[in-house]
Amino acid sequence: MNYSVGIDFGTLSARAVLVNLTCGSEVASAEYVYPHAVMETALPSGKKLEKNFALQHPADYLEALKSVIDALICKTGVKNTDIKGVGIDFTSCTVLPVDENGTPLCFKKEFEDEPHAYAKLWKHHGAENEADAVTLAAAECGEPFLTAYGGRVNSEMILPKILETYNKAPHVYKAASYFVEAGDWIVWQLTGRNVRNSCMAGFKSCWTAEDGMPSDKFFEKIGVDMREKLCKEIVTTGTFAGCVNIGGAHISGLYEGCAVAAPIIDAHAALPAAGITDNGKLMLIIGTSGCQIVQVKERIDIDGIVGRVYGGVTEGLYAYEAGQTGVGDIFAWFTDNAVPTEYKKEADEKGISLHTLLSEKAAKYAVGESGLVALDWWNGCRSPYGDFSLRGCIFGLSLATKPEEIYRALIEATAYGTKCIVDMYEKGGLVIDEVYATGGISKKNPFLMQIYADVIGKEIKVSDNSASYGSALLGARAAGADKKYAFKTAAIYTPDKANTEKYETIYKKYLRLAEFIKEI
Amino acid sequence: MNYSVGIDFGTLSARAVLVNLTCGSEVASAEYVYPHAVMETALPSGKKLEKNFALQHPADYLEALKSVIDALICKTGVKNTDIKGVGIDFTSCTVLPVDENGTPLCFKKEFEDEPHAYAKLWKHHGAENEADAVTLAAAECGEPFLTAYGGRVNSEMILPKILETYNKAPHVYKAASYFVEAGDWIVWQLTGRNVRNSCMAGFKSCWTAEDGMPSDKFFEKIGVDMREKLCKEIVTTGTFAGCVNIGGAHISGLYEGCAVAAPIIDAHAALPAAGITDNGKLMLIIGTSGCQIVQVKERIDIDGIVGRVYGGVTEGLYAYEAGQTGVGDIFAWFTDNAVPTEYKKEADEKGISLHTLLSEKAAKYAVGESGLVALDWWNGCRSPYGDFSLRGCIFGLSLATKPEEIYRALIEATAYGTKCIVDMYEKGGLVIDEVYATGGISKKNPFLMQIYADVIGKEIKVSDNSASYGSALLGARAAGADKKYAFKTAAIYTPDKANTEKYETIYKKYLRLAEFIKEI
Repeated sequence: MNYSVGIDFGTLSARAVLVNLTCGSEVASAEYVYPHAVMETALPSGKKLEKNFALQHPADYLEALKSVIDALICKTGVKNTDIKGVGIDFTSCTVLPVDENGTPLCFKKEFEDEPHAYAKLWKHHGAENEADAVTLAAAECGEPFLTAYGGRVNSEMILPKILETYNKAPHVYKAASYFVEAGDWIVWQLTGRNVRNSCMAGFKSCWTAEDGMPSDKFFEKIGVDMREKLCKEIVTTGTFAGCVNIGGAHISGLYEGCAVAAPIIDAHAALPAAGITDNGKLMLIIGTSGCQIVQVKERIDIDGIVGRVYGGVTEGLYAYEAGQTGVGDIFAWFTDNAVPTEYKKEADEKGISLHTLLSEKAAKYAVGESGLVALDWWNGCRSPYGDFSLRGCIFGLSLATKPEEIYRALIEATAYGTKCIVDMYEKGGLVIDEVYATGGISKKNPFLMQIYADVIGKEIKVSDNSASYGSALLGARAAGADKKYAFKTAAIYTPDKANTEKYETIYKKYLRLAEFIKEI
Repeated sequence: MNYSVGIDFGTLSARAVLVNLTCGSEVASAEYVYPHAVMETALPSGKKLEKNFALQHPADYLEALKSVIDALICKTGVKNTDIKGVGIDFTSCTVLPVDENGTPLCFKKEFEDEPHAYAKLWKHHGAENEADAVTLAAAECGEPFLTAYGGRVNSEMILPKILETYNKAPHVYKAASYFVEAGDWIVWQLTGRNVRNSCMAGFKSCWTAEDGMPSDKFFEKIGVDMREKLCKEIVTTGTFAGCVNIGGAHISGLYEGCAVAAPIIDAHAALPAAGITDNGKLMLIIGTSGCQIVQVKERIDIDGIVGRVYGGVTEGLYAYEAGQTGVGDIFAWFTDNAVPTEYKKEADEKGISLHTLLSEKAAKYAVGESGLVALDWWNGCRSPYGDFSLRGCIFGLSLATKPEEIYRALIEATAYGTKCIVDMYEKGGLVIDEVYATGGISKKNPFLMQIYADVIGKEIKVSDNSASYGSALLGARAAGADKKYAFKTAAIYTPDKANTEKYETIYKKYLRLAEFIKEI
């Protein structure tokens, strides 16, 4: 029997699955919670951290790797020699400085008290000024990657994070041979090969398949040429990156020779997880925030996207990414801040969540009945306007407005925000044949999903597979065991034609409001 | 010693005060709660009422009259012969059909089961269609009163209410010799004189001092000439209407010969209560809704007002009235529908109201700090836009927005709404020298009052006197005992110049949003 393993390195834990490559089904799963979690206030030594810091300890990643492989083998009795491939998805950009052997600087005595020697997690926000400097330099030099990023390098990307280290901890910068994405670092540990994957390089490090890294002039402007600290070899995500070597076998429990795939960003693993390796299939990732990824053969400039990367998900295709800054976050804000005591009591008595209660009550209203329209900008607007200073609005409030009507308006607002992005893609020239969805909310809230289908006016298939499953398939592909499986669909939402027509009218109002509010 | 009595006939009770005319101070007060309260679902007989009905039993008014006079005399030992005058304010338009002797039709056996034979309370909303018909007829005939009403006759006014009786209960219409404002009906009972006061006639029955009642053509259009059922003699509010006669003395306990003033609408009594009998003093009445009354010598057409009546409050002056459809109602909506459990718990633990808790928390923010702006149209917009279909909005919401920030934005929105009206008056040509305030909220919420002063940019004096006190002064005037007193001020709010400047900027944004939203 042949198997592959997929490991999803998330923010607080790593989750892994073992997949039987004959039928494509998961045979076991395992999870390891990081002992150091996210370090936001202090280092293990007790040293205090500045505001906006979010660090991780790479020792946790190694522990996780060993622990989940051991657990999968132990639970199933599968021999490690039957595990032909391993795929990895990781949060990104999560970056750590290492020496020439790949040893994290934070493992060394002299750096254990140095925050910048640890892994900066994707949501580390210490490099805001550096992000502005990088954006400015890119604009001044006319760097081609900037259009692919919608005109802005944000502080979560790799160049600002490295520049922050250069500015605030020059001795760390100097001591580092490389700054490595944590996903790539795992591959290095397993295979001994220091290579970068195209997904993280393309979406997070200003690299493009066409032009490589930015120009000399650009690095002159920002004052340091960090290309010297970034590996030059790029391997397309999901393709073969190397084989597990002696050291890798030792630290992981995998067998020497097991194929390792070039990693993928955790969100992007949703596409292989749903079996999406081809043209025109849009994946909606609906969680605390929203992300919309679609792949086509053509390279098109589209205003308002977050990134466009050749081979960013699948070899030979351009992956386009757009985003909404808040989705579940907005609903959580509402239940935390704007729902009265009686509702809380009713939910508690029924033993259901406030979200479920509000959805049940909201479902009793017809489309447009409440007269409410909201703009989903509680956390700014990523796509299509790229303006993080924008803010949320609610229109149409009356003395008779009930909390569930507002809750429904918020759901509808995020649906309109998604439709804006679908329109942006289609007007830009991308042909969208099918729509898929994944992410916590897509499985938990059928009421919301039906509204999304009605608003967008397209059928939505909810993928039943996790990111780690997607990674396992990349591992299989790297091992040469690529195969088409029948993908599991958790649910299919078909638009109600009458509702779609009604929503079309309200969506026009949303757009008029959006146009006005973003200019005021 | 000379005294006067003022009686404030409200929605649920009558409150009365006895005033010493030497010093102008209240020496006693009394209240009588109407046993029938507001009849919204059934008559005393058990007969069910249609939706939108709000009736009262005039027997309650007579009981109230006797009860409060008895109580004032009993509490103080004042002889009734020392009570030289009585003034009355009443809700309006509260109208009842009576026979030629002034006996309410509902007192008669044959009408006791007939809803239209009872007093229709100001908030009776059964005459919506009739209001549209009256407005249309007035517009088609170019009736001059229509501009004084901001272009619209609403269903709370007297002509729609009478027309409703004509349409739905023609036998009641036929049997009625007169339809009388309840305030005027009290005067009739006391003095035997059937006259109408200029305040209620002017603000609620389409009468103007210049043109009298609407034209023949107008009444032809609406299909019935109800002028035959409305007394023709108009007496200026607050002036002498007659003396208590034998019957009046019997039913009230006042002495025969006591002077009775022509009544005033309860809200409008706030002006005499604060000693306002002259030019350019704006009174803000801040309660569940908002009302702004100012008097000047000039007759000016101003778009967006609710009414303009010569002698509507003080003889010789034009009274201008504008209104906000929701103030306290909006704050109550917020605490009922949008405040989370933890806040309710905190307020309960501290033993304070949610309003007080939210005000305390909101006071910690600087002007503009939250970035929120709201439009105060939860119940439509009366002035300046006269559009009841408009709805409330909140702009600037973020994931960090707290309930107290929204509460503050709602307070600020009602302040901007008031400033809109002040601007409307001033741009129209009215000169406002001083600003006063009264109404429950003006005394309960100093945080709100300071915001009002800052937003409007003018000092606001909060009147400490009740409507019944204002009525007592009208009673004194009718008795020829008019005198200037030193009026009590509950508090004075002086604008903070820096805050006024900041609010000026946000107010401009409010206006731009208002202009956009009312057109969308």
